Amino acid sequence: MASFKKYRVDGKFSLAGIDPGETPFLEGNEDAQREALDALAIELDTLQNLLHAEGRRKLLLVLQGLDTSGKDGTIRWVFSRTSPLGVKVTAFKAPTEDERAHDFLWRCHAAAPRTGEITVWNRSHYEDVLVPVVEGTIDKDETRQRFAQINDFERLLTQTGTVIVKCMLHISKDEQRVRLQARIDEPGKQWKFALGDLEVRKKWDAYQQAYEKALAATSTDEAPWHVIPADSKRHRNLMIAQLLVKTLKGMKFSVPDADPALKGLIVE
Amino acid sequence: MASFKKYRVDGKFSLAGIDPGETPFLEGNEDAQREALDALAIELDTLQNLLHAEGRRKLLLVLQGLDTSGKDGTIRWVFSRTSPLGVKVTAFKAPTEDERAHDFLWRCHAAAPRTGEITVWNRSHYEDVLVPVVEGTIDKDETRQRFAQINDFERLLTQTGTVIVKCMLHISKDEQRVRLQARIDEPGKQWKFALGDLEVRKKWDAYQQAYEKALAATSTDEAPWHVIPADSKRHRNLMIAQLLVKTLKGMKFSVPDADPALKGLIVE
Repeated sequence: MASFKKYRVDGKFSLAGIDPGETPFLEGNEDAQREALDALAIELDTLQNLLHAEGRRKLLLVLQGLDTSGKDGTIRWVFSRTSPLGVKVTAFKAPTEDERAHDFLWRCHAAAPRTGEITVWNRSHYEDVLVPVVEGTIDKDETRQRFAQINDFERLLTQTGTVIVKCMLHISKDEQRVRLQARIDEPGKQWKFALGDLEVRKKWDAYQQAYEKALAATSTDEAPWHVIPADSKRHRNLMIAQLLVKTLKGMKFSVPDADPALKGLIVE
Repeated sequence: MASFKKYRVDGKFSLAGIDPGETPFLEGNEDAQREALDALAIELDTLQNLLHAEGRRKLLLVLQGLDTSGKDGTIRWVFSRTSPLGVKVTAFKAPTEDERAHDFLWRCHAAAPRTGEITVWNRSHYEDVLVPVVEGTIDKDETRQRFAQINDFERLLTQTGTVIVKCMLHISKDEQRVRLQARIDEPGKQWKFALGDLEVRKKWDAYQQAYEKALAATSTDEAPWHVIPADSKRHRNLMIAQLLVKTLKGMKFSVPDADPALKGLIVE
């Protein structure tokens, strides 16, 4: 297995230094890659059952990335073998009036995972240090304050039993062009397309900068960021599945011991 | 395909008249059955995508049944091919203090499906016309009133775009004995067992009666109940998967037309 080290965000991190076209976690031919992903998906299902049986901790997967970077596809394929009983997805859209009337972490806290559960956030509280930064609606001081608030919030979650995995799906501007064009040209995909996506695309460089700053400021020991080269969908899926399996294995689950009081009990 | 007619609850319904050991939806050998279930699960995934793409309606699957009747297993296998993006599960446990401080439909309404989504209720508002009836904490008048409130609530959901599928997983007392005993005897399953389950089992006949009354009183044209013979897990899964596929096909999805304004649009 390739190493995650290069893709884990630390103080000296440069987003431009990671090529979205890299595929370090792809091995063998296409069939072998598909089989590897399916095997990982099955392993994730087993590990999710252990997380549930243990009943003490939670796992939170945060997925961020620009339009068409593959957040939905990641969820579909990485969790293709997991029961919907144990995996909950929350998709954060533009905040509602009620959500805007609270602090930016309020709606996320409400969607935090329960004991024994894997929760996936499809977009997250990180939108609130990306969109307003690019749009200029918050200044540097407020951005810095939000970074600190995010780190405090995530510390609360990790200290109370949540393991946090944060992945930024990193695609190239060319690959986004191809994927947006496909949404326009293929009638069956058009419902996924919004003209606003083209406006956001025009701010590509500003978003890359905002991502770089946000990731560097919020990649902590307890809740590190990983950048996922995502021009190849299969690479993206395999890398995230590997990261989740590695993380869950590291949690070293122990199922509760057999209860001696139940020994020999016969159901009438 | 077998007919659902016999299992659809109407005015002349008798729960005892349906043998939990029946397997009308099992055809061919074990391999063929597994393949049929997988094919249905893949079809459900396709139909869920259409539900999402259409963006107008919702599907609610209500699963009820006594302990070990297979609610969790149903969710795992029927939705084994569906992305967790499109299927949300809410498991209703004994109500919290906050939930008890509201009417019994309050927490269910809050968990109603969004547009484009399939939501599964693992237990539901029907617990509130089963447990209190068996325990004698509500009288006949209040029970009748709750049935009417349930029918009103479900009418609201169906009139606002929710298709409701309600399944009662029907197991025999013998099969429950075997499954509870397995939970006691197999160390890996013990965490699923609670001594309280044996107390509930002692009230088997009272629960059968309460189920019969509740199902008869709340099986409406808009939201009918089906009784699922569930001693065979594979039969249970196949029958529910067939019912869901039939229901979703009946919704006759149409994906939004291609937008002429987007014709020829080139992404820069």
